[in-house]
Amino acid sequence: MVDKFRTYLGQFAVFTETEIDLVLSKATVKRLRKRQFLLVEGDVCTHSAWIVQGLLRMFFSDHTGKEHTVEFAVENNFISDRQSQSTGKPSLMSIDALENSEVLLFALDDVDHLIETIPSLAKMSRRASTSQIGFLQNRILLSLSMSADEKYKVMRQQYGELMQRVPQHMIASYLGVTPATLSRVRKKYEQG
Amino acid sequence: MVDKFRTYLGQFAVFTETEIDLVLSKATVKRLRKRQFLLVEGDVCTHSAWIVQGLLRMFFSDHTGKEHTVEFAVENNFISDRQSQSTGKPSLMSIDALENSEVLLFALDDVDHLIETIPSLAKMSRRASTSQIGFLQNRILLSLSMSADEKYKVMRQQYGELMQRVPQHMIASYLGVTPATLSRVRKKYEQG
Repeated sequence: MVDKFRTYLGQFAVFTETEIDLVLSKATVKRLRKRQFLLVEGDVCTHSAWIVQGLLRMFFSDHTGKEHTVEFAVENNFISDRQSQSTGKPSLMSIDALENSEVLLFALDDVDHLIETIPSLAKMSRRASTSQIGFLQNRILLSLSMSADEKYKVMRQQYGELMQRVPQHMIASYLGVTPATLSRVRKKYEQG
Repeated sequence: MVDKFRTYLGQFAVFTETEIDLVLSKATVKRLRKRQFLLVEGDVCTHSAWIVQGLLRMFFSDHTGKEHTVEFAVENNFISDRQSQSTGKPSLMSIDALENSEVLLFALDDVDHLIETIPSLAKMSRRASTSQIGFLQNRILLSLSMSADEKYKVMRQQYGELMQRVPQHMIASYLGVTPATLSRVRKKYEQG
């Protein structure tokens, strides 16, 4: 787990062992069973979760109870509701585990302090944020401009083997299409 | 212009005069006429623009030439294609001015260096990024889960008077609805 996190950080910047130890000293390990919630709609999102192992999703339940998938996150990624973190207001979304998972939880105050103390972490955080903003801008571009077929194709490229780990109705809800449309699109894709 | 930028920075963190002078020393003032491009699809996005005055939009042109609005940005906001910035690859999107505008341009390398030099700027950058990620996550949530009526209502709340400054077909393209649908929704909204 420590090695995985060290490798992850090393992608973005150079860290000393002492710095990595300091970061890890602020982490709480949490195990989640499949279907267990990490964040429940209505609670304020006070932590960021880095996924050691497993698969989480962030979703919104509309007034009919239908669930809309905003994000999937697998190993080596962070997940959190940034709007709730940014405003301090209750989250509109929930985060749950789609598989038995293990995460490292970091309290926001600790993250702020760590970033102020460790320049490499500040750099890593900036790069990760820029990359996430780019990903979300691109997701909006896709949702506005592309057909179901094209969106599915891009999702296959971006998510690869994740697609095998997620129930089809959640992939449909991520793409904003009906399960019937997804089924048609998949058949077409698989036939090449 | 200097005062406006100082007020903007002051919302996020405390800066000394020297720090603000240092930040401003890296800015290039650029005036854009209405319809002028700041970034053209196919170019790498190497700068972030802070809008002193005016209105810009970032959009994607699909293969039929139809334009899809990913972001609007008015005074006191930054705009840039973060995916191109993050990957160093050519932008899929363009940024143009919808009004005569004035922006401060910051080269990415300068921003990196400034953030490493000025702790308050690092804090400001983190807060602004968290807020932007939250906004984009929320935008995805809306686009997946809400009707045209609801999306329009939320956009009115978020953008207020901006809505008067933008042509209707661009608002429709931001919401991902047809101009005819937008026209119906607006009538309904205005009748209360």
